[in-house]
This record gives sequence, structure tokens and C-alpha cells, in this order.
Amino acid sequence: MNTPSHLSSGLWRHPRDRSRGYRGLEHWLDLARTLEAGGIDVLFLADVLGVYDVYGGSPDAALRAGAQVPVGDPLQLVPAMASVTETLGFGITASVSFEHPFPFARRISTADHLTNGRIGWNIVTSYLSSGALNLGVDGQVAHDRRYDIADEYLEVCYRLWEGSWSDDAVLADAASGVYVDPGKVRPIAFQGEFFRVPGLHLAEPSPQRTPFLFQAGASSRGLRFAARHAEAVFVAAPSDAVLAKQVAAVRAAVAEAGRDPDSVPVINQQTVVIAETDATAHALYREYLDVADPIGAAVLLSGWTGIDFSALDPDAPLAAQGSNAIQSVVDAFTSADPSRVWTPREIADYARIGGDGPVIIGSPETVADALERSVETTGVAGFNLAATVVPEGWEQLTQQLVPELRRRGRRPAAPRSGTLREKLGGAGARVTETHPAAGFRHTP
Amino acid sequence: MNTPSHLSSGLWRHPRDRSRGYRGLEHWLDLARTLEAGGIDVLFLADVLGVYDVYGGSPDAALRAGAQVPVGDPLQLVPAMASVTETLGFGITASVSFEHPFPFARRISTADHLTNGRIGWNIVTSYLSSGALNLGVDGQVAHDRRYDIADEYLEVCYRLWEGSWSDDAVLADAASGVYVDPGKVRPIAFQGEFFRVPGLHLAEPSPQRTPFLFQAGASSRGLRFAARHAEAVFVAAPSDAVLAKQVAAVRAAVAEAGRDPDSVPVINQQTVVIAETDATAHALYREYLDVADPIGAAVLLSGWTGIDFSALDPDAPLAAQGSNAIQSVVDAFTSADPSRVWTPREIADYARIGGDGPVIIGSPETVADALERSVETTGVAGFNLAATVVPEGWEQLTQQLVPELRRRGRRPAAPRSGTLREKLGGAGARVTETHPAAGFRHTP
Repeated sequence: MNTPSHLSSGLWRHPRDRSRGYRGLEHWLDLARTLEAGGIDVLFLADVLGVYDVYGGSPDAALRAGAQVPVGDPLQLVPAMASVTETLGFGITASVSFEHPFPFARRISTADHLTNGRIGWNIVTSYLSSGALNLGVDGQVAHDRRYDIADEYLEVCYRLWEGSWSDDAVLADAASGVYVDPGKVRPIAFQGEFFRVPGLHLAEPSPQRTPFLFQAGASSRGLRFAARHAEAVFVAAPSDAVLAKQVAAVRAAVAEAGRDPDSVPVINQQTVVIAETDATAHALYREYLDVADPIGAAVLLSGWTGIDFSALDPDAPLAAQGSNAIQSVVDAFTSADPSRVWTPREIADYARIGGDGPVIIGSPETVADALERSVETTGVAGFNLAATVVPEGWEQLTQQLVPELRRRGRRPAAPRSGTLREKLGGAGARVTETHPAAGFRHTP
Repeated sequence: MNTPSHLSSGLWRHPRDRSRGYRGLEHWLDLARTLEAGGIDVLFLADVLGVYDVYGGSPDAALRAGAQVPVGDPLQLVPAMASVTETLGFGITASVSFEHPFPFARRISTADHLTNGRIGWNIVTSYLSSGALNLGVDGQVAHDRRYDIADEYLEVCYRLWEGSWSDDAVLADAASGVYVDPGKVRPIAFQGEFFRVPGLHLAEPSPQRTPFLFQAGASSRGLRFAARHAEAVFVAAPSDAVLAKQVAAVRAAVAEAGRDPDSVPVINQQTVVIAETDATAHALYREYLDVADPIGAAVLLSGWTGIDFSALDPDAPLAAQGSNAIQSVVDAFTSADPSRVWTPREIADYARIGGDGPVIIGSPETVADALERSVETTGVAGFNLAATVVPEGWEQLTQQLVPELRRRGRRPAAPRSGTLREKLGGAGARVTETHPAAGFRHTP
């Protein structure tokens, strides 16, 4: 995220941490160069357009912790990072609740042009009420309704990206003097329940047209939405047992939506702490824990779950302080370690590093073993590796993990080139025929 | 503009023109490097979020000409260009009609951080109906009402930029563990007629806070808006006589708004065609005219004036085909050359190079003479020099005009550094005390 502290709260306090540099371009250009040189496929930037104010009913604790606040626009970082890289892909989060699809579709087309097709969009429907309130909306739109709006939002975008301009609309022909053949551009004439967009897309066809689409949907309605639209699905499973179930659920939903389950990779959120040996890695993890911030972690947990952790008894078993919402937190953490009875304090302590996702600590061999086991036993296709201490956390990935995975034949020797869609397994730059966007293609 | 053809229609057809490169980053990085090395202060990027469809009642002619379509998001270009420059300033156009002020304010704060305070915003209220229609708004909001909405939009932005975070709110203090002092951040609790924004700004204080503000307002309501908010005013006066009147009108309106007229420079839109001698410059101008596109020019004129030039008699005097709207076009062009009786064809032919603004053709000395005369006789402070053939038009400015202006002591030897506000004459990085934004500053 374009913020000093994403999932591992308080690591900005570490003496070697340089995350304060997030305000300037060099920080991001260094990151992009490091990842590309180190053989990473994609840099993913999350976002929230709101502040975590469930904890204590105010944003104060989030501010004090620097828990995803301050936070800047991620999209503006992408072209600058693309200018110093050739193959690195980029994913950004943007909510369908915060910008009308007409200007949003243009922004993404611009990014796809500027990056030569290296942009992906993580579609979110927004989970922080504070964001919606700041756009003049009272509370959040009902959950299922949000997905109905999102479906229509996507249809508008697909019609603009795929349907408005034919592939050969731009002639830029000095001899005839014609820049665009108007017979090959059409207004989308869209009139839906929530949006009305009569005109044509303002950007000419970009390499991918529809950007590569990420989505993370946990609810049944969210999973149905992801199964219809996503080309890769993010999950945050705390253990391989849970991950295997989630991968199976995504695959079943994708098949149900009439698409090939093999065409939609599942990517697990994953934090790793790597050092030369297991012992030094565990020492490093303890060093990180020492500066990490359990209140920051509780702020994030409160925002994600809607439960105010400051109002719970920190030392009573969480399950005993029950509600349906609490049960899902209990399920997540007991599945991480079923032998424990988790208290709110223990959960927040645990979540200091890696937030709601799993953490693997060890030598490159140990971490690679765990990731390989995860791939083999769950069907997960890849990992969204979260930042820890910056920049050493980046370097653990590129200097220690990737070389080990290469030795095992799990990573290519050179980064894959082409568009983000091709990099992530697609047959070409454009969405496949079975993706709903393909149904809106311009046909003369 | 992030488009192949801005004001001079059809120059993309010129054999030396490279404007088709607008889709990729190298085009923009080259432009930024060229301008900075050549001593230009600011790169200004206009924008429209719509298509010119008044001419012939359809976008076809605009598409054929490439008249400001296709067109991409300008903001994403800025951080990439900032990464290869140190002092060049950037201005971008954004309409208050197309994005809610809460996310917009964050975008601009992000840009201000990433550029180290080198960003400016040209506030527009939008003039193309096609843009509004695509956001589900029937027709355009009444003109004066648009400015009421814009005033409130600015107030929301000012409260977010200036009022939400105190200068010393960010501690990022590892010892105490506090990133932000919550006592120094406050929600703006804004409840207006058009917008409701209860929360706090998501970005931490950036170098300028409020970006440097440009505005172009021609109507009396527009002028009042500009006089209140603008820190520099754009005009497009076709002659020094008209320019002198416009400068006087802006100064009077600024004084009326309680601000110092000397603090609000007026900048005229200006196209120049420069070569070694006057004769070679005129030959170059004729060469440009030969490939330029009178229909593209008529498409732009139709969009700006609301008059469908395709429905006029091309060879009858324009004044005789009267309406109030036509009268303003007549006034503009007769003031450019009062000795002529203009027909629609002649106007479109004339507007092929430079659109609705003036054109100066000649040697560096001749052009510098004309610009100096304009400054001395009208009170204009500077010029917004429009692109012609790319990149040679850029090079005419940096390799021919700037050196001549330097010889005359009209340009500094090295580009001025600091924030855009300081570069354009401000006493510091922040708005002055008499600017309305200053009234919203965070005071503990």
C-alpha cells in the first residue's frame, strides 16, 4: 500500500525500516527495480479510501499506530515504476464505490497504455464505512446490493474497454488524414439500473483492453462475483487445511460460472521472515515482534471484522464473548492453531506480523519447503507476499527466496515478459472467450 | 493534453511529427527532460472528459480528425515525469464535475508528495455536455449553479488539504511508537448543500498542501470564481488589445475579491512557430498549414462555442448568421484582425494552427519582440505555449526562444527550483494569508 504500514503493524519503528520514504518516488522506483531484478512477477498495491475507526469508535488508535493511515493513491505510482522496469507487472486496488465507471475506465486504459499492458485491477466493493460516509453515503450499501452494483459497474467497464473501439479503429494515417475511423467506434449506449453511459470510450484500444482482474470474495455472494469476473482470486488462509478448502470452493464456483477452474489461479496472502538459518530467521522474527504493535493489529482486526477489540475482555477466550462476527474470527485463528484457545490479546499479538494471514519463518530452504507443500497439498497457484521491514523484507524475497525456488525449478531463470495477463498464465493479452468481458467485444 | 492533437488540428499528419507516441511513457519523459533542460517553468496538461460532438451532431468528425480524442488521464503522467526532472512544474486540468472531492483531494496530495510540491491544478467546471451525459447527468447543470457547486467543492478540498492535519501531526517516532498524534488531526465534519464529508483527510501534509491553483473563467460568474480561488489565470486573447482588457478585468475582479492583483498572474495561451529567420519561420508555418485540418479546427470551435459549424454557410460572413453565441466568436476573431469580415471557412482555416489563441511566427528575435511587447503593453505575466509539431515545436521553445529571452534578461539562466507556488512567484510553498484556503488552516 501507498502507506508506511500495511499488514504488519508497527514495523516502521524498526531501526532499519525505511517505510517513511513512501512519500517520495525513489522509494517506489527502488522497490520496482528490486522486484524486477529479483525475479518477482507482480507488485500488488492494496488501498483503502477510509480510516480504521471501529477500534474504540474513533480513528485515534489507527493514527497513533500508523495503521494504513496516512494512505495515498496507488495508481499514480504505477507509470513511474513502469518507466524503470520492463517486465514487472502491477496490480492496484480500486473500489467500484468511489469513482464513476466512465472516468475510471479511462484511467485504467491510460495505465494499460503507459505500462504496455502490465496493469491489473483488484476489484473491491469496499468494507470501511468511514469511506462511504465521506462520499455522502449513509452507512454502507447492503452487502448483496453492493455486488449487484459492482456487476453493473463491470458491465459498463467491459463495454467501454472491449466494445467501444474495434481493434483496427485507429488509422493515424497521414495520407488520408484520418486518425480514427468513426465507423469502427461506437457509443456504448448503456442504460442500466445504477449507471447510464451513452457515449464512447475516450481511450483507444490498449494492449490488454480489460486489465487483468483480481478479486477477493469471501462471502457466498462475493465468491459468485469473483467466479464470474476474476482472473485470479486472492485469499488469506491461515493454514493449508483452510487454504485447500478455499481453493476448492473457488474452483467449484468458477466451474459453476461456466469457466475453466484451471484458468483462475488462487493466490494466498503470505508473510515470510527469512534469514540464513532457521535459528537466525526466528531471531529476526522475534526482533520484528519486539517493535511490532499489538494495538495496530487490533485496529486492523477491528476494521476487518467490525468487532471493536478495545471493548472485549483481552484475556477471556474470544469464543466466549460470542457473536456471529466473532465466530468467524475464532474460526480463522483456531484453524491456524486448533490446539489453542485464543483470547483477543493473543490474536492481536499473533496478528502483529502478517495481519490476518499466515507467517512462515525460516531459512530459504524451510520457507521454500513450506510454500511447495502448500502448492502441492492445496492447489494454490501462488503467493501474495506481504511487506515486513522495508527494504530488507523485499530483499529477503529477491535475494533469498527466489534463488532457492529457482534451484527447485519453481521459478523461471528470467522474469516472464509480455502483458500481465500473459505473465499470469493467460494465452494472450486479451481476456479468454469464456470471460464475460469477451461477450462485449466490438464486432463490426 | 494526453492526446495526439490538442489545439493545432491535424499536425499529427506532418512527416516529422511523433505525437502518436503519446501512448507510451518515453514520449512524456522526453518532453519533461526537454522542457527542464530548456529552461521552461511548467508543463501544463489540459483535459476533457468527453468528446467534441457539436459539429455535425456526432463525434465522427472529431474522431476522423483526432481532435482531442482519443484522450487519456493526464495525472498519471506527472509522477513519471517528475522522476526524471528536478525543477519542472506540472499543471493538470481536472473538472469538479467528474470526481467526488474526497478521493480527488487525496489524489492531488499524493501527486504533491511525489513531485515534491511541483503540482498545480487547473480547476474546470466542464464545458462538454457529452462528458456530463456519460456520468448519468442529463445535460449540463446550469452555468451559474455549476460555479456554486465548484465553490463548495473547493471548500471541501481546502478543509481536507489545509484543515485536517496540523503541520506537526506526523511524528513517526520509533521511541514513543507514535506515527501520528491524533490530537493534531481532525475530521472536517463538512455538511454543505452538495457534499457531506465527515472524516479526516487520508494523506499527510504535503509540501504545498493546496496545490497551486490555475483557473480560466471568461463569464462574469467564472471571473468571480477565478478571482476568489485562482493563483494564476489562463486567458486566450487573440490580440494585445483584447489581452490588455482581459488582464485589467482579472485584476479588477481579484481586487474586488479582497486579494492583491499582483499576486495573481495572467497567462495567455500562445502558439509560436519559430525558425532561424522570419522568412524560414513563415515557410515553416505554411508547411504546418498544409498538413493542418480545417475540419478538426471547426470541430473544436463548435465544441467551444456550442455552434455547429457544419450547419453554417461556410462562405457567408459569420456576423450575418447571427446569434449571441456567434457574436462572441465574431468578436474574438474580428479583434484578431478587425480589417477582415470573417466567414466560417476563414475562421476554421485560421484556427488550424493554435485553435482559438494567437499565433506568432518569426525568428527568435521577432517572437521575443512580440512577447515582450505583449508583456509591456498588456500586463500579461506569462505565456502558455501550445504544442505544434512534436517534438520540433518543443525544441523551438527550448533551443530558440528561451536562449533569446535569456539574452534579454527575461528568463533566468537556470530554472527556478522549489515548489510550483514558489516558482510562479509565491512567497513560500503555502497559499498566502489572503487566499480563501488559508482560512481553513488547522489551528490547534
